[in-house]
Amino acid sequence: MSKKPSIPKGTRDFNAEEVAKRSYIMETIKEQFQLYGFQPIETPSFENSETLMGKYGDEGDRLIFKILNSGEYLKKISDEDYNSKSESSITPKISEKALRYDLTVPFARYVVQHQNEIEFPFKRYQIQPVWRADRPQKGRFREFYQCDADVVGSKSLFQEVEFVQLYDAVFTALKLEGVTIKINNRKILSGIAEVIGAQDKLIDFTVALDKLDKIGEEKVKEEMRSKGIPEDGIAKLQPLFSLSGDFGDQVESLESILSTSEIGKTGIEELEFINSAISKLKLKTAKLQLDVTLARGLNYYTGAIFEVSAPEGVKMGSIGGGGRYDDLTGIFGLKDMSGVGISFGLDRIYLVLEELNLFPDTITEATKVLFISFGEEEAMASIQAVSKLRESNIKAEIYPDAVASGKQMKKQMTYANRRNIPFVVLVGEEELKSNTYSLKKMATGEQQKLEFRDLLKALE
Amino acid sequence: MSKKPSIPKGTRDFNAEEVAKRSYIMETIKEQFQLYGFQPIETPSFENSETLMGKYGDEGDRLIFKILNSGEYLKKISDEDYNSKSESSITPKISEKALRYDLTVPFARYVVQHQNEIEFPFKRYQIQPVWRADRPQKGRFREFYQCDADVVGSKSLFQEVEFVQLYDAVFTALKLEGVTIKINNRKILSGIAEVIGAQDKLIDFTVALDKLDKIGEEKVKEEMRSKGIPEDGIAKLQPLFSLSGDFGDQVESLESILSTSEIGKTGIEELEFINSAISKLKLKTAKLQLDVTLARGLNYYTGAIFEVSAPEGVKMGSIGGGGRYDDLTGIFGLKDMSGVGISFGLDRIYLVLEELNLFPDTITEATKVLFISFGEEEAMASIQAVSKLRESNIKAEIYPDAVASGKQMKKQMTYANRRNIPFVVLVGEEELKSNTYSLKKMATGEQQKLEFRDLLKALE
Repeated sequence: MSKKPSIPKGTRDFNAEEVAKRSYIMETIKEQFQLYGFQPIETPSFENSETLMGKYGDEGDRLIFKILNSGEYLKKISDEDYNSKSESSITPKISEKALRYDLTVPFARYVVQHQNEIEFPFKRYQIQPVWRADRPQKGRFREFYQCDADVVGSKSLFQEVEFVQLYDAVFTALKLEGVTIKINNRKILSGIAEVIGAQDKLIDFTVALDKLDKIGEEKVKEEMRSKGIPEDGIAKLQPLFSLSGDFGDQVESLESILSTSEIGKTGIEELEFINSAISKLKLKTAKLQLDVTLARGLNYYTGAIFEVSAPEGVKMGSIGGGGRYDDLTGIFGLKDMSGVGISFGLDRIYLVLEELNLFPDTITEATKVLFISFGEEEAMASIQAVSKLRESNIKAEIYPDAVASGKQMKKQMTYANRRNIPFVVLVGEEELKSNTYSLKKMATGEQQKLEFRDLLKALE
Repeated sequence: MSKKPSIPKGTRDFNAEEVAKRSYIMETIKEQFQLYGFQPIETPSFENSETLMGKYGDEGDRLIFKILNSGEYLKKISDEDYNSKSESSITPKISEKALRYDLTVPFARYVVQHQNEIEFPFKRYQIQPVWRADRPQKGRFREFYQCDADVVGSKSLFQEVEFVQLYDAVFTALKLEGVTIKINNRKILSGIAEVIGAQDKLIDFTVALDKLDKIGEEKVKEEMRSKGIPEDGIAKLQPLFSLSGDFGDQVESLESILSTSEIGKTGIEELEFINSAISKLKLKTAKLQLDVTLARGLNYYTGAIFEVSAPEGVKMGSIGGGGRYDDLTGIFGLKDMSGVGISFGLDRIYLVLEELNLFPDTITEATKVLFISFGEEEAMASIQAVSKLRESNIKAEIYPDAVASGKQMKKQMTYANRRNIPFVVLVGEEELKSNTYSLKKMATGEQQKLEFRDLLKALE
């Protein structure tokens, strides 16, 4: 094989710097998850196909990566199916497993499967990759990590309150200040649809409303008309188009619209509860904002809906989202388990931190000192010193291929430079005799001859 | 769906305790990898099939999980191939990607693909899952983690020396004292085969020799005879069967056997170099032992071969292994890149630490304190206190569903007990009035009423 090898489209290799930066984000999120009492679980990369199929709609089914059965997998196909040469009949016969598409369905499966070992309410977090056979494009990958925290088994709105706090805590810990946590409630959307006589057009209605920012009031109304939403319904929406002021003002407008809808009023109460608790608790650096156009996975959520956007001035889609779903585990036969959860968008958070230069310098600092030795005996002395440095928690390396000429010496200095190693120690005949080490600071070229004790001090 | 859901055979769910214990092992390994100057990389879970196929032998090819192409994947099959209904013609047409089978081949692919961005010698570590369609059995899984460290681009034997140190450092850090690092050298095995006139029977010879411990000298000789190794060759092996004494004694016996083999003598020199360096550097808790029967992936290694076994008295296969391979990247067209690396067996190390009770208690300590509140107002006060505790890095939770009756109170105490939460704080009407918190120590039942300041102190 002489062609340079490559990786499948939509996948990525990560080098040391990228791994370090990604770990920094994940560890920061993990730390906050744990402070809030969430417990980690992990599920297998692939599930039985029946666990995943049919849970994400037709489009989702198509985007699920299926794993080919092992062995003589064609034997399981009947002649009739085989002769049809049709994917829909053949796929289920030759593939019984599929790669995880998100963390929510495996979590639901986990809860049902392990219900007798779990104490409810169950607060779990999960940080693992998922796979989607989506068309790859800028910022969209076929393999990417999800970072989820969910609670199942509690209907208390304090859960929602804690999730708002958790978002604030994570982004504050990442020094990403000024994010907006947008909140809405599915019950408000249902209430509006009810009031304007478009219960059966909830999706059309929210899709149109969602475009308000981009296309303006008139175009939104036009779209609603074209979807068959009645003119007097659209008229009732008028206050929605000019929602402004703080949370309280906006809630007042909503109350006037929703005065005749029971479900709508419940939605408003829930919103107010969360907002009032957060006002008392105070957020550190984020702000909470009502966004009535927020719909996210409408068919899924039943109560609060969350979405987080990057600080103003950073062009980036949502960097987090979530909400409450009243029947998470019902698909696997366990009824009455209300769940609520949030998710962090690792890849987008990465891009935002990069753009705003918010990664701490320390996380990409790898090796602190490289030993260069001028012969085998010198290398042996170096490795003894390196061992002691490591015992003092100093990241140290030895360049073990003996230096025979000036040219090779230069190669080793270049190596230290390119690897961003701040210190080099030279061990030659002279140092060996005097039991010393020549420490060179790469940034300045400064060089001193030190005994081990002082070398340790200089590097600590 | 009313059937309780399950996961594919050979895969596992991990609960919070298992995740914590596994993380502890992986973090400990990672820390040492970094101290030794290894840099992390990550590669995609699936590779192009051509990257993996043919790299692990026929058996390996069969055990690789293949991913079904998306969309109308049957269209790519010619009528002729389709009518053959044969897996060997159809699989390559309907599957272009496959799950990672180990970390070594993806690493080789990475090195070749990114050779212009890499500084050599390149010391990388990688801790990621791999997948094999093996028959699942006790301790063998279809999804499991590998933890590898490798250096490419250096032929120095100091690399081998450092890997012995690294094994010692990791197992010492895990408090797993007394492991045996067995070492051999492929060149010694080649030398022996040469001396006894069985160059072409190197594998038969080592397979037989490997059984010495289990079946004894006579049976080993019998097996060698049955494989066609000549009688006078077997006679020359006599000193091998009674290898004893320390490293030096054993090397002496080997020298007498291998006096006529150039490659054999080189192997002995390499062994002696490593052993002498380690004698000077001293291991902390492990011991280095020559094992001439050690062969591990014979066709792969070209120099040193390593294997680590658990401390005496623990029945467990090897918990680590590795060696030098002179042409790692040749399969992808990059010649002359000598590599050497080691691997840690996460699952087995886990079982050993469990058996010897070596996991620190602290790692499974999750939430420290649970707040139980007796009404909405009390819950609000609780959540304010909980927020402050978290800011002081105390893992705190609130049980937010208001307590209405004695029965529910009991439920919440049971929850704290089962979750192993050491402290509970009760916030009722009285506490709310006096701005205090009743702290209960679950182990003793002891209860005190405290102001927040003292509560914080008690929990810190």
